[in-house]
Amino acid sequence: MKTRAAILVETGRPLEVAEIGIPALKPGQVLVEVNYSGACGTQVMEWRGEKGEDKWVPHCLGHEGTGVVLETGSAVTKVQQDDRVVLSWIRGVGQEAGGAVYDWAGRKVNAGGVTTFQKLAIVSENRLTKVPVGLSQELGVLLGCAAPTGMGAVFNVLKARPGDSVAVFGTGGVGLNAVMAAAFSGATPVIGIDPSPARRELAITYGATHVLDPSESDVVEAIREIVPGGVDLAAEASGQPAVMKQALQTTRAQGGRAVVIGNAKAGNALSLDPGLFNQGKSLLGTWGGDSVPDRDYARFGKLIASDRFPVQDLLSAPYALSQINEALTDLAAGTIGRPLIDMSLD
Amino acid sequence: MKTRAAILVETGRPLEVAEIGIPALKPGQVLVEVNYSGACGTQVMEWRGEKGEDKWVPHCLGHEGTGVVLETGSAVTKVQQDDRVVLSWIRGVGQEAGGAVYDWAGRKVNAGGVTTFQKLAIVSENRLTKVPVGLSQELGVLLGCAAPTGMGAVFNVLKARPGDSVAVFGTGGVGLNAVMAAAFSGATPVIGIDPSPARRELAITYGATHVLDPSESDVVEAIREIVPGGVDLAAEASGQPAVMKQALQTTRAQGGRAVVIGNAKAGNALSLDPGLFNQGKSLLGTWGGDSVPDRDYARFGKLIASDRFPVQDLLSAPYALSQINEALTDLAAGTIGRPLIDMSLD
Repeated sequence: MKTRAAILVETGRPLEVAEIGIPALKPGQVLVEVNYSGACGTQVMEWRGEKGEDKWVPHCLGHEGTGVVLETGSAVTKVQQDDRVVLSWIRGVGQEAGGAVYDWAGRKVNAGGVTTFQKLAIVSENRLTKVPVGLSQELGVLLGCAAPTGMGAVFNVLKARPGDSVAVFGTGGVGLNAVMAAAFSGATPVIGIDPSPARRELAITYGATHVLDPSESDVVEAIREIVPGGVDLAAEASGQPAVMKQALQTTRAQGGRAVVIGNAKAGNALSLDPGLFNQGKSLLGTWGGDSVPDRDYARFGKLIASDRFPVQDLLSAPYALSQINEALTDLAAGTIGRPLIDMSLD
Repeated sequence: MKTRAAILVETGRPLEVAEIGIPALKPGQVLVEVNYSGACGTQVMEWRGEKGEDKWVPHCLGHEGTGVVLETGSAVTKVQQDDRVVLSWIRGVGQEAGGAVYDWAGRKVNAGGVTTFQKLAIVSENRLTKVPVGLSQELGVLLGCAAPTGMGAVFNVLKARPGDSVAVFGTGGVGLNAVMAAAFSGATPVIGIDPSPARRELAITYGATHVLDPSESDVVEAIREIVPGGVDLAAEASGQPAVMKQALQTTRAQGGRAVVIGNAKAGNALSLDPGLFNQGKSLLGTWGGDSVPDRDYARFGKLIASDRFPVQDLLSAPYALSQINEALTDLAAGTIGRPLIDMSLD
């Protein structure tokens, strides 16, 4: 059996879309017909080689999507044929079965436990969760990465409560999920900070009560004008060390907490005043918003499916798999939010 | 009314012990006969001018002690005459009444809401808690700072649980309280890290299962030999940015947490790899171990009064108030743990 897949052959060069041969399933693996894939900054960084040396090339990529189970390997108990599933990089219940090695005309193509830039994919059982009832497969893509990361950071890590003041730095796909989660939590004010006017508009659409342009003013000062003493909680979704520093600075003394959601480039350094910690401020890290797919995705799916926010607008107009490089380029340029790759388009 | 007090006249110079005049009590203030005072790194830093410019000199100092209430100002409801009290810099229930201004032969001497390097002290109601029943006034001194800071960081901030692995960097007075708290919590292993052989011995005495000399080995590697994958929790009690970095590095990915207890010198910078946060590690700050005197001190006092650890050895042989400079010098040199100043000695 063969499938079309987008392959990273060398960092810094366009992905190559090619036919690759699918190996037999190993125990714990599942063959999924991918219907939709998303893409996020992690793939852009992988593509550009910004995560350091890539010893896995050539390899498949993509870590968020939805599809239908075609076949299950031995010992798989979590899903069965015809199940509609979310594909997510965050590990849940089930076996970690390792990645597949595909065949590209005699050349090996590596893949992790989940990849989604392809029409058929071998996925570890633990990266699959059923699509919540009432959620479309298009919107289900958000459950693969942006929602658990952005919402999870606010719900699971910051544990925002009604009345907490929240600042979100960087209101792209993940940041907007954090803004929505803050709004769903009853937080107020919810301050979105982004240099892009379009993304500031979106922040308002998705629940921000205030927006700030960091290129126009001293953000720490501007936030203190809105919330004297600093915000209770901050989320950093830009991946830039200077912004992580601002996020921590902008929280209140004696209990303020900032969470780093954005991925830093390899080799970057974060320089902080250690006295901020002596003031009782904390800088929290997270792995996938501390989300547990089997615990959280059904709940997050209900929020996404509710009509409070126009969540479908978080996704771009659909790209075909053959347009994957265009999708990543548009994502990197910030001209779209979350690209939606529709596998039925070619 | 007059009292003897140790006064910081100029940073970097010995404290001067002198007679100062006590003003009338303002609402919310309490006059306390101090029986014992402790001292910690904060006073050493104040004395040396390491907290930045000191605009309050000349001023009283000391922020942990025990004594007896002599007189209460109007509106004081928390304590009454003859109550045995802990004096602590951490704010609890009650009024924040501001500091007193003492008179030194016509010269004003400032003081904060609590000071303890003096025989009689005017203290804000909210810095006083009754000495728990069954605890001596000598040991009660530990409740003023070292215990709420060191134990609180482990109990309240890290929330150590039985079976958690814990590393404590710097096993001086506060660090040893963190080691004890980890042991009381059922954590194991409990790893104490300190360059001083004497302090490593103490760490074993107070509950560490392992000790490491950071000058002899790569601490991060050495900890990984004891706990592959890194510790669940780490506490940093040295105040040195390089050690804060190690504490964070040494925690496990996906949920490891390090807390900064040590006070950094003003102007110090902390340089971190932001990727550590993307791995799901967190660096927590704290203000007084997040301790709430009225909630925590009775419980901490029971632990101190229990005979599991030789807590009395945490305190030095007593110094007289006239020996205050010797006490601070010995503390700064690390030749003693927590100095005990016994006001009855001169």
